[in-house]
Amino acid sequence: MPHARALPFAFALVLAAAPVLAQDPPATPASPAELLAASQAADWRTLDPANTLYLELRGGRVVIELAPRFAPEHVANIRTLARGHYWDGLSIYRSQDNFVVQFGDPAEEEAERKPLGEARAHLPAEFTRPAAGLPFTVLPDADGYAPEVGFVDGFPSGRDPATGEAWLAHCYGALGAGRDVAADSSNGTELYVVDGQSPRQLDRNITVVGRVVQGMELLSTIPRGPEPMGFYEDPALRTPITAIRLASELPAEARVELQALRTDTPLFSRLVEMRRNRRDGWYKVPAGHIDLCNVPLPVRVKPAG
Amino acid sequence: MPHARALPFAFALVLAAAPVLAQDPPATPASPAELLAASQAADWRTLDPANTLYLELRGGRVVIELAPRFAPEHVANIRTLARGHYWDGLSIYRSQDNFVVQFGDPAEEEAERKPLGEARAHLPAEFTRPAAGLPFTVLPDADGYAPEVGFVDGFPSGRDPATGEAWLAHCYGALGAGRDVAADSSNGTELYVVDGQSPRQLDRNITVVGRVVQGMELLSTIPRGPEPMGFYEDPALRTPITAIRLASELPAEARVELQALRTDTPLFSRLVEMRRNRRDGWYKVPAGHIDLCNVPLPVRVKPAG
Repeated sequence: MPHARALPFAFALVLAAAPVLAQDPPATPASPAELLAASQAADWRTLDPANTLYLELRGGRVVIELAPRFAPEHVANIRTLARGHYWDGLSIYRSQDNFVVQFGDPAEEEAERKPLGEARAHLPAEFTRPAAGLPFTVLPDADGYAPEVGFVDGFPSGRDPATGEAWLAHCYGALGAGRDVAADSSNGTELYVVDGQSPRQLDRNITVVGRVVQGMELLSTIPRGPEPMGFYEDPALRTPITAIRLASELPAEARVELQALRTDTPLFSRLVEMRRNRRDGWYKVPAGHIDLCNVPLPVRVKPAG
Repeated sequence: MPHARALPFAFALVLAAAPVLAQDPPATPASPAELLAASQAADWRTLDPANTLYLELRGGRVVIELAPRFAPEHVANIRTLARGHYWDGLSIYRSQDNFVVQFGDPAEEEAERKPLGEARAHLPAEFTRPAAGLPFTVLPDADGYAPEVGFVDGFPSGRDPATGEAWLAHCYGALGAGRDVAADSSNGTELYVVDGQSPRQLDRNITVVGRVVQGMELLSTIPRGPEPMGFYEDPALRTPITAIRLASELPAEARVELQALRTDTPLFSRLVEMRRNRRDGWYKVPAGHIDLCNVPLPVRVKPAG
């Protein structure tokens, strides 16, 4: 182990990715790791394979959870594109430091663009949706970008009681549908993933379709593009996409069954409070606040049995 | 150029890194690029070579501005360590996704650690300092982690009128001094750079000594370490440090003369407002807010003449 001075400490989310069993839990969990070790099966939800995308790169697999409750038309089109193997052989053609990576078809001319197959070329904008009917777990902490923030099925979200709208927030790992100037110019072929300081000014301005739940480090370490906004004009610099598949399209042995910690449970509230006010020996001044995009969202491989 | 759908748009800070001359400015700048093109020499400050560190990697140079007003003892020690070539041949031994990279001496045992030369082994904690005497430009936007936030000489900072304290904020690019559990256990040899969502809970818990002003992409793309918290136990996986030098120790021809946009000018306020409420054709809903760590801090090479 490196020298103990090699800090700052951090909540290692990777720990939560390993199977965590509810055996011999401490009576009063003193750390997030202990709290998660004391979790029950009901504290977790298994990702739906029909809403799970595998972005396959040479370096490994990025797992994405889609959000059909927020962007039903885009998610339906993305499913169709994945079934048609639309992205296979295309690339990650943009990597802008402290902002996003973006992938799809870099061709500018309509005539040069890859055919969409069964997918639709035009979709409505899905920047927000009615908040009514959504199970919204409010985060009590103040937020500068939204009247209310919280979680819907594990997705960091904003809500405005005055307008009755809800939307997905641009936190680290958010997956959005790139668009042109027209609000309804995205069709789900060009997708970006946030890999820097949360660009919350994009909230309500673009359609967010999901979030990366595993493998972010495969995207965040892609060399930044030399052109403005991180584009690569040289195709040789782009990162090839081997395939994008719905988990439900793959045989069971090719899938990894992931579980995300539920965000509507007492255990999750305790986890958030542990991060809002850290009481370990290292922290001298608890923050008394946690930003929506700093809330840990643990993911694990579903335990056997 | 890639397809126009290849968005979201973003304020390309890289544009500001090229020399920008105040010639033929538009009467009413419509974009940050136009605003910067209309800037005057007095809107910029030239970095002090005695407070500028060059972290030299095989892939290029990372430029760091030190903050002696906030951490005078640490900065003095870091200067001494750089003069003694302390970090040459050491490494970046930690890269944790969405958090930090960290560098210095990974040896755990005191007997194996590289000698400090003229530098001090122990320093006081410098988590905060008196706000009195600091030129603090307040950002009017609310912040969850501090009663007031703003900028001091270009550094994102927090301030508490109740306690009279000020401190540097953990935004993207912040450089801090890793420590052990004891508050005064950092000496500036082990340094970390924030390269993910701002971990503001570290504010007032650790000594921040400066920030990266150029070359962040050389750090943010380093492959994440396989061990918990992003450490590499295998030395072959670490990124070697060729050298760390004070700019003032190098001959003029080996330096790059950088300028940072001043943060206490009307022009800077206009730039911030342009990002707080985007009025271009792409944005449909201006955010009405900007987070401290989302404020752009342009840097350029000093124009000739």
